[in-house]
Amino acid sequence: MTVKQTSFEALTVDSLPGRLGGIGAVAARVGGTSATWRVREVGDGNLNLVFIVEGAAGAAVVKQALPYVRLVGDSWPLPLKRSFFEYHALTRQEGRAPGVVPAVFHFDEAQALIVMEYLTPHVILRKALIAGRQLPRIAHDLGLFMARTLFRGSDLAMPTRERKADLALFADNVELCDITENLVFTDPYFEAAMNRHTSPQLDPVVAELRADRDLRVEAQRMKHLFAAKAETLLHGDLHSGSIMVTDTETRVIDPEFAFYGPMAFDVGMLLANFWMSFFSQDGHEAGGPRDSMRAYLLGVIAETWSVFRAEFGRLWRTERNGMLYHRCLFEDRGDVIGSEQALGAVIQSIWHDMLGFAGIEIHRRILGLAHNADFESIEDEDLRAACEAPALRFGRQIVVARHQLHSIEEVNALAALIRGEARR
Amino acid sequence: MTVKQTSFEALTVDSLPGRLGGIGAVAARVGGTSATWRVREVGDGNLNLVFIVEGAAGAAVVKQALPYVRLVGDSWPLPLKRSFFEYHALTRQEGRAPGVVPAVFHFDEAQALIVMEYLTPHVILRKALIAGRQLPRIAHDLGLFMARTLFRGSDLAMPTRERKADLALFADNVELCDITENLVFTDPYFEAAMNRHTSPQLDPVVAELRADRDLRVEAQRMKHLFAAKAETLLHGDLHSGSIMVTDTETRVIDPEFAFYGPMAFDVGMLLANFWMSFFSQDGHEAGGPRDSMRAYLLGVIAETWSVFRAEFGRLWRTERNGMLYHRCLFEDRGDVIGSEQALGAVIQSIWHDMLGFAGIEIHRRILGLAHNADFESIEDEDLRAACEAPALRFGRQIVVARHQLHSIEEVNALAALIRGEARR
Repeated sequence: MTVKQTSFEALTVDSLPGRLGGIGAVAARVGGTSATWRVREVGDGNLNLVFIVEGAAGAAVVKQALPYVRLVGDSWPLPLKRSFFEYHALTRQEGRAPGVVPAVFHFDEAQALIVMEYLTPHVILRKALIAGRQLPRIAHDLGLFMARTLFRGSDLAMPTRERKADLALFADNVELCDITENLVFTDPYFEAAMNRHTSPQLDPVVAELRADRDLRVEAQRMKHLFAAKAETLLHGDLHSGSIMVTDTETRVIDPEFAFYGPMAFDVGMLLANFWMSFFSQDGHEAGGPRDSMRAYLLGVIAETWSVFRAEFGRLWRTERNGMLYHRCLFEDRGDVIGSEQALGAVIQSIWHDMLGFAGIEIHRRILGLAHNADFESIEDEDLRAACEAPALRFGRQIVVARHQLHSIEEVNALAALIRGEARR
Repeated sequence: MTVKQTSFEALTVDSLPGRLGGIGAVAARVGGTSATWRVREVGDGNLNLVFIVEGAAGAAVVKQALPYVRLVGDSWPLPLKRSFFEYHALTRQEGRAPGVVPAVFHFDEAQALIVMEYLTPHVILRKALIAGRQLPRIAHDLGLFMARTLFRGSDLAMPTRERKADLALFADNVELCDITENLVFTDPYFEAAMNRHTSPQLDPVVAELRADRDLRVEAQRMKHLFAAKAETLLHGDLHSGSIMVTDTETRVIDPEFAFYGPMAFDVGMLLANFWMSFFSQDGHEAGGPRDSMRAYLLGVIAETWSVFRAEFGRLWRTERNGMLYHRCLFEDRGDVIGSEQALGAVIQSIWHDMLGFAGIEIHRRILGLAHNADFESIEDEDLRAACEAPALRFGRQIVVARHQLHSIEEVNALAALIRGEARR
């Protein structure tokens, strides 16, 4: 007999079957009696506990927040309510882009736990890219996912009353926003205590970036935009570690950083992670050259942007039922061209902002607290720094010169140029 | 003995003393026994009941919301909670710019009533400007008021946790936002049912504006910004009818439209009302020419912007303690120039957005539902239209060409040029 607990208690491999066995939706999914369940802890993220539970009928993932950052311990408290925001983000994303995020079987707010679909044989996209795998569907699937969630969560599509109520709900996700605001937008640009970088190899370029007035000003303008432009419900942490893939499927997980912010943020973070993968490939050539992988990644970037833009345009033309750019001012008076002109202005704004957010994401992953495995798994520090330095220079350029960059092909060419310059 | 009522009931001149006499803060202010109070209803606004209560010791204003729009009746319901938002806006404005808004003596949420300071011998600024009065302090006082409330209510100054909580609170002021979103940004640009304009005199210019694709696109981009950029707590309705003046004092009233929006909105609405006063002066020359009044108004506009800009800069240098443009990235590393560069970028953005909002405010006051007395009190319709038409053309120009306008003097010169062209 399961007794529902009301005060928070962290799950363990041993306690999980007893605590979740009585929940019908979970038991039905996993099957059999809970005493026969096989449970393993698999959490390799920084923040939470994650278990896989398997039984006679199937499997499920159990994700539980802890009242602190898992990797650091209780010296860094972090509220349990992030699980609440993750749950609500998952339900909204499922509604707006069906089939991409994991199905949710059960949510317990007091225990800060979500029981959800176990994705198998999916692997984390970041690991696949490090391994040199060329996933054929990611650009298409992620371009659609972003266009659909970002468009449909905004005043372009939603009744504004609902959007404002939802904005108020997610405004309370303040601690996770705070992590982004400080760790992404501020710390990398000065000598913050939690920063680290490949040293001493990167010291000169790091000093150069922190002395770069235009970069600091523009990074803070992007932070201003991030904090003030409550345009749509973002995933908020859409990097290649939040994406699980097979050759035929692309799934997006972990939206606990969700909040109302600028559309360009999700797009910029995702493309930044592809560009970082591009720059990191030189560090993963032990098994052979990665020229084809680099070409693949630039192709993914171009296609992701292109699919995003096309789907955003399609939604603009077919689902623009919110209060912004109302049809009564354009199509309804025969001015389709005016509607297209407004779409062009919206896309252009996302484009420039996207580049700014992308450059900052690259910087914080090399200079800040939370590095990524693309670079970190390159053990030779000279080789790693030789990959990181051009990525940093590229990041600087797309932040500061973002209004002078006009197409995704041009930005990819800049990435290739900066890599080439560094290898001469 | 006063019994506190919990279900809403509209006040009347007769019931007011009995219902408010037992409230200590009110009784102390007005004085004597409530049976001796003199009460008159003075509401001349569109939405609410307003009473002046006088007694042995003094006087107070009692403002009560009604569950509908007062001017229209119960066919246009409007929630009582606007009184709640007005009360909370007044307390925040008093904290950020002390002495400008009326002192609040009592707030009753269930009765949607605020008892506040009776401003006397103050008159509504709009009426004074129509009468040709040149108020010496308004530019200075309003420039300071806007800089202080807009800066101090943003992430430039507030702890972001507090700003986000306050943003969530005001996100519920959805019905009053809806009025602005539709009546200001959308209806004037098509043949909406509630629109009216001086007809047939203005018909040609109205047709021209509604056919103007660039204007419709840019007006909708401004609406997008208004809805998405939750930057600071706005007054939300800062026109010359929301300002009370004497020669020595400037007070700001009626912030029931308060919500988190872009800083430039309050500034643009205020300057638009000064520009409208400028264009309307030709209609008020029965008592003599208004050349000096026109010069005064352009001077007020230039000085308001200049004072706003200077005070915003002063606050930037002395009170920038929020999370945006953090000192650790600028002053703390000796880069005062970087801080000034960032300030310049923020001001430039406010400048361009302000012009866009100003042009739209001018259009909606001539083409939409809620006209203003500057033009409406010109009884000769030909004369009125002769004032309104150049104002409309000026509004179009500062919306569409706002990025090509570089100084307030240049915009004033444009206003003078367009007026001159219309009178040739």
